[in-house]
Amino acid sequence: MNYREAGVDIGRKANALQAAAAKIGETYTPEVLKGMGAFGGMLLASRLKGMREPVLVASTDGVGTKTLLAVQTGRYEGLGFDLVHHSVNDILVQGARPLFFMDYIASARLEETLLGAVLASLAEACKAVGIPLLGGETAEMPGVYREGALELAGTIVGVVERDEVVDGKKVRPGDVLLALPSSGLHTNGYSLARRVFEGWNLEEPREELAGRSLAEALLEPHRCYLREVERLWGAGVEVKAMVHITGGGVYENLPRVLPLGLGAEVWRGSFPVPPIFGLIQRAGQVEEQEMYRVFNMGLGYILVVSPDRVGEVQALLPQSHPVGRIIEGSGVQVV
Amino acid sequence: MNYREAGVDIGRKANALQAAAAKIGETYTPEVLKGMGAFGGMLLASRLKGMREPVLVASTDGVGTKTLLAVQTGRYEGLGFDLVHHSVNDILVQGARPLFFMDYIASARLEETLLGAVLASLAEACKAVGIPLLGGETAEMPGVYREGALELAGTIVGVVERDEVVDGKKVRPGDVLLALPSSGLHTNGYSLARRVFEGWNLEEPREELAGRSLAEALLEPHRCYLREVERLWGAGVEVKAMVHITGGGVYENLPRVLPLGLGAEVWRGSFPVPPIFGLIQRAGQVEEQEMYRVFNMGLGYILVVSPDRVGEVQALLPQSHPVGRIIEGSGVQVV
Repeated sequence: MNYREAGVDIGRKANALQAAAAKIGETYTPEVLKGMGAFGGMLLASRLKGMREPVLVASTDGVGTKTLLAVQTGRYEGLGFDLVHHSVNDILVQGARPLFFMDYIASARLEETLLGAVLASLAEACKAVGIPLLGGETAEMPGVYREGALELAGTIVGVVERDEVVDGKKVRPGDVLLALPSSGLHTNGYSLARRVFEGWNLEEPREELAGRSLAEALLEPHRCYLREVERLWGAGVEVKAMVHITGGGVYENLPRVLPLGLGAEVWRGSFPVPPIFGLIQRAGQVEEQEMYRVFNMGLGYILVVSPDRVGEVQALLPQSHPVGRIIEGSGVQVV
Repeated sequence: MNYREAGVDIGRKANALQAAAAKIGETYTPEVLKGMGAFGGMLLASRLKGMREPVLVASTDGVGTKTLLAVQTGRYEGLGFDLVHHSVNDILVQGARPLFFMDYIASARLEETLLGAVLASLAEACKAVGIPLLGGETAEMPGVYREGALELAGTIVGVVERDEVVDGKKVRPGDVLLALPSSGLHTNGYSLARRVFEGWNLEEPREELAGRSLAEALLEPHRCYLREVERLWGAGVEVKAMVHITGGGVYENLPRVLPLGLGAEVWRGSFPVPPIFGLIQRAGQVEEQEMYRVFNMGLGYILVVSPDRVGEVQALLPQSHPVGRIIEGSGVQVV
């Protein structure tokens, strides 16, 4: 491929994946420099020059075994949202706004329809967030991957002013945990969920899931909390700490942003638990504590604010619920 | 883990991998911001403020099936260099200097010794290049990976002044290709190489390899060309285009940086071909053209310069060889 021929320079991805290529092109902001025969993607970073002390924030993550359910049911359209939203949330916790995304897709064999669907999904997710899918890599490795298995990982890079990094330093006992709801499992707990539902009909509508099928409920894409948090920032609301509830649930994720000497109490029943979790718990006879250790249980993203800001946050974000508080001590108790 | 306890904040990697964690800590430049309970790694990007028009350059890549040979022979110490060097070279082609690296390591099961060795290797490679291993992710997915198989991928982010992006625009017919030697296969062609040597003794010293074993020759780490190119920049030598010879060999990689209407001629016999390639060709009865399509054949990195700069480059980089020239037309001919 000659660089002048490459209108949308996605390198290895261009052949016979035109629809996905066009969608990737739509993610390109004016900051993306194109047509350079690029081995790497290029982003003009002039906006960092206007900042006082720009801090780049980067995170690498994967979708995990949620891909196996997508393959099993032939539903790939949510996977890009899963990966991009997970990644956006991970750096948002530190106050960073996303700049660009890079993907990594690997399998024993990458059939074009599958690859096109995953790339299109990644591009749609990036476009919705407002960042370019700047580059990526695809690999076919039959010696590494199980037949039919899919790996989807990626790296996000964002930026935050150094003095606006959210670091939990001002968190005090009595501060309130306000949760934004998850849409389901997001991208964690799929090993357990897949074990529990082995042999079940994934496509049958179920009453316990309000008429949805297991496939629909389990593959519901990871939610993104960028717009909600931006709304708070726009209104000048001080958020002392933020937590993205991923693998390890509230038990492992909340302590990551709390200063030494502080713990947290999470109030059972104070927030809606999506029905898929109840079904997993009953079908798998999983203890409740284990459920909170593996899954987000409906707590997608937690904001830590002082008690006098709770009303303001709830006015701006009607979906938010007070679900607990900061206490002296350490660790997390679900009470 | 509480953020204050985490001297070296590598999150998920900290447990029982202390040696690797210490090495990762050694990669941290003063620009790395630590101890924030970080979901993402943070790098103070003040140096971009001092640039005229900073362009971020990012590339994601994997080591491919070279990992399978490493697992088979228990030699992991080169894998980090493979990944980091491959990545550094990929963005160097556009004139970018590396800023930081993010890794992704996945397997069916990640045994601690293996994970520690791979992380230590990544950290050593990053340290040698002078960049922090800012973050990463490890995943254990028995449903995705074959038993004993290892995935190693990563993302590099670098930076270049917009008006210093190397883009091949000034390349003219008659310009000279100067090659810097590869150390062996680097990270490409392992599917073919593994097929050719299936059943061979990998540890036996071989006369054809100057007394080295197949394992040693095949696992020789990917070379990094950053220091060489920096030497040219330091001396003010204009390099019109650069090519990292990876998958697809000279045939696919050279055209990526040539303007429309130009092709290249590569002169057989003008450069040393490492003995491992001759052995693969003979043992596998591979046609020569196919060899040049799959492997770098000793051409690790190619500089395109005008004929009057060749002497200067060779004086600065005694390892460089004139190996071909730019011609009118298109495509690459090995003559």
